[in-house]
Amino acid sequence: MFEERLEEFEALFHPTSIAVVGVSSDERKVGSAWVKGLLSANFKGNVYAVGAGGGTIAGSEIFTSLRSIPGEIDYVVVCIPRRSVLSLLDDCAFKKVKFIQFFTAGFSETGDAEGHELERDVAAKARQSGIRIIGPNCIGVYCPESRFPSGPAQEPRIGIDGPVGFISQSGGLADKLVELGIARGIGFSKGVSFGNGADLDAADFLQYLAADPKTRIIGAYFEGSRDGRRLFDSMKKIAQVKPLVAWKGGKTGVGAEAAMSHTGSLSSSAAIWSTMLKQAGAIEVDSLEELVDVLLLFQEVRNWQGISVAIVGGLCGGGGGISVSAGDACSEEGLNIPALSETTRQELVNILGPVGSIVRNPVDISQAYGQPSILHKVMEVIMADANIQLVIVQEDADILVKYGCLQISDIINGVLIDFASRCSKPVVVVSPPGSAEMDRLRIENQLSQASIPVFPTMERAARAIARVNQYFSSHQGT
Amino acid sequence: MFEERLEEFEALFHPTSIAVVGVSSDERKVGSAWVKGLLSANFKGNVYAVGAGGGTIAGSEIFTSLRSIPGEIDYVVVCIPRRSVLSLLDDCAFKKVKFIQFFTAGFSETGDAEGHELERDVAAKARQSGIRIIGPNCIGVYCPESRFPSGPAQEPRIGIDGPVGFISQSGGLADKLVELGIARGIGFSKGVSFGNGADLDAADFLQYLAADPKTRIIGAYFEGSRDGRRLFDSMKKIAQVKPLVAWKGGKTGVGAEAAMSHTGSLSSSAAIWSTMLKQAGAIEVDSLEELVDVLLLFQEVRNWQGISVAIVGGLCGGGGGISVSAGDACSEEGLNIPALSETTRQELVNILGPVGSIVRNPVDISQAYGQPSILHKVMEVIMADANIQLVIVQEDADILVKYGCLQISDIINGVLIDFASRCSKPVVVVSPPGSAEMDRLRIENQLSQASIPVFPTMERAARAIARVNQYFSSHQGT
Repeated sequence: MFEERLEEFEALFHPTSIAVVGVSSDERKVGSAWVKGLLSANFKGNVYAVGAGGGTIAGSEIFTSLRSIPGEIDYVVVCIPRRSVLSLLDDCAFKKVKFIQFFTAGFSETGDAEGHELERDVAAKARQSGIRIIGPNCIGVYCPESRFPSGPAQEPRIGIDGPVGFISQSGGLADKLVELGIARGIGFSKGVSFGNGADLDAADFLQYLAADPKTRIIGAYFEGSRDGRRLFDSMKKIAQVKPLVAWKGGKTGVGAEAAMSHTGSLSSSAAIWSTMLKQAGAIEVDSLEELVDVLLLFQEVRNWQGISVAIVGGLCGGGGGISVSAGDACSEEGLNIPALSETTRQELVNILGPVGSIVRNPVDISQAYGQPSILHKVMEVIMADANIQLVIVQEDADILVKYGCLQISDIINGVLIDFASRCSKPVVVVSPPGSAEMDRLRIENQLSQASIPVFPTMERAARAIARVNQYFSSHQGT
Repeated sequence: MFEERLEEFEALFHPTSIAVVGVSSDERKVGSAWVKGLLSANFKGNVYAVGAGGGTIAGSEIFTSLRSIPGEIDYVVVCIPRRSVLSLLDDCAFKKVKFIQFFTAGFSETGDAEGHELERDVAAKARQSGIRIIGPNCIGVYCPESRFPSGPAQEPRIGIDGPVGFISQSGGLADKLVELGIARGIGFSKGVSFGNGADLDAADFLQYLAADPKTRIIGAYFEGSRDGRRLFDSMKKIAQVKPLVAWKGGKTGVGAEAAMSHTGSLSSSAAIWSTMLKQAGAIEVDSLEELVDVLLLFQEVRNWQGISVAIVGGLCGGGGGISVSAGDACSEEGLNIPALSETTRQELVNILGPVGSIVRNPVDISQAYGQPSILHKVMEVIMADANIQLVIVQEDADILVKYGCLQISDIINGVLIDFASRCSKPVVVVSPPGSAEMDRLRIENQLSQASIPVFPTMERAARAIARVNQYFSSHQGT
């Protein structure tokens, strides 16, 4: 599907050379930051700097014009003021540039006639020369495989290579998504932030990601669309073959006005978007956190069986209230928390004793007092219960630290990682923030490196599970 | 109101001596952990250890019976098995003990006849001797002023002394609340976890907190109540004089079953509880996170004016998408995001320029590129706008790190702290987690030490603001 996009966008995500226009020897300028960022990330192609004043940046020549660059140029990053962009297009046409990304703002998002007109003129002129535009008013491409960082940072972190592709009309949210990927173990195939979307728009990039063999899951942040019909038709096809997780910003009146000022997007009503996403088969989410949660869960889970969950808490005591509130949180998101079989309950009583634990689902194993051998037995019994399709474990660093079990958190994690790798049922961990943040981050890193998805609250884990199940229950056998 | 509780419970929250029953020289036993925890926290009264085997713990004698302790005993922590608790009550009566807290479990929460009967017998026998019971199946009192730590940890952190009092049927959630207080800067006057509530129940403790001059705000986690009428009547009075923030666990079928196994609580339906809380004038919350958010905001805000908020984002770029999604999040929680006055907008254009920022509300100050002098001017202009009653600032450590503004985050925080201390309008900060957690924690600590409440997402900040406003809009002039 959309295989033609692969060749068409090859030079977009894997350019052999990038020219940054609007660079000076002043390293604080944004154009200079783009150049330094590409160099520091070890971008795999050539990097050229262009600036009217010439000079050098990071030891390299600053060409005084695009035309004076000796080699070919696939991708141009534009950081000059808007008044100069039309004449730059002539230089780009001369150099047979394939893609121009305008970091430059001041187009339709300003809301004034001048900005609208300039955006139309730029798009028309580029079209005449066969150049495609990303933006204007955006940070463009991100591709860990090409070592193409996200945004104009001098020392960007490149993030993790992986199966998640994304599009975002907002550069700030794209940047944050990359950072949250680093934090939570999400790997990215490609990303693109396309701002006003004057030429290439959401549908184009989504079609590419649908065809891209490196992309297994697609995330999207929209503010609006200039061609809703085309976007809908594309999403409908794409959602047949890959999970498409979509967040629509500007759903409220205030948000929509902000979207108009941000990317010149004319937002339709929230209800229209929700209906469209649903009919297209996309999975709608309501916040950046939820987008990240759902992408992470899609990335990590194998052998999805359903939403009949067992909840295990109290790894080091204190699991009673957690059992109650976890039961509430999962129920409210529509998960099933089935009764454990009589055999399972009896075995849990044998392991934990009759007092101080809760041997129904949710299971409170407070009486294990952090002993990994007991956790091991409990997990074995629960995993074997035919009523259970997924296990959620609550591992609270504060409680582990407080009750002296932290020194064995590595072993506890080892037990969980062992089960997650051996069993056909997915394991999900909830590790809530608190006062032992270093310890929590250590737990999260260990687990996410072993492909166990970690969530900060039971509510967020439950919601992500419900969303992922929404996909699999309508794509049985895929 | 309820002033008689102050004297009655003086020995509960400020006991002159505590005896822990069920201690051995084996330091891994839970009774031993209680003793070591009280000593390591420098509890202000005497600490006695009692255990049939005698010996020593942490250099102190373990008395072989309660009767052999030379001095008076205000508060007894019981960690012996349930079969021995009735005979212990005789010793307690002999020693004229005032309060007994049963860490011991195995009472009504087991659901069996034996547990129910034992709980009734214990309550009846204690009543005959004038002893009040906390629990059974609980961790009892927490009071930073008395240096009385929460729960049986060997080296507990005592937390911060402050204006928030809480009650919790769950010991685990009480512990977590204390840790979240440490993490987020909430100070506690007193707390109590009372498990099954066989004698002293929620209403008793709430009455004390209402009378307690050190308690300005009350938080509560309920699983059920044995006397709903009395609880309702108490809450109705209490909510007149102090904000009462209440979370009901076990609102779903699964949660209610867990509550029955946890604290023997017979939960009424969610709708009944919600109606009761509303009619009592309490502020209902739906999760531990929300409870903490609302308590924090109540603690920090002065001069509440209302929910007409200005949102400021993009402190170091990347504020466009944040403006859109923040507008959505605040609108969805019912906050007003009024248009800025024409004067304010014109002044913002003068400060930020016409391109690349958003000078409507939400305000995106990306063009400030992290310069504190610009933030200072922006804050001054917005604070002066008569349409605005509260300012929410989004400060994202990931973006500050990425775009090289982190070295000035101290200065940015200085600007915010300066405004918060000088202005009559509250300032709230949203600082979302990500990949620069050390930096985020540093920002959060700086701000919360200066009494600026910090929230991890715009959604949670907005919801807390709406909840706090719920109180002030029905208590005008208090």
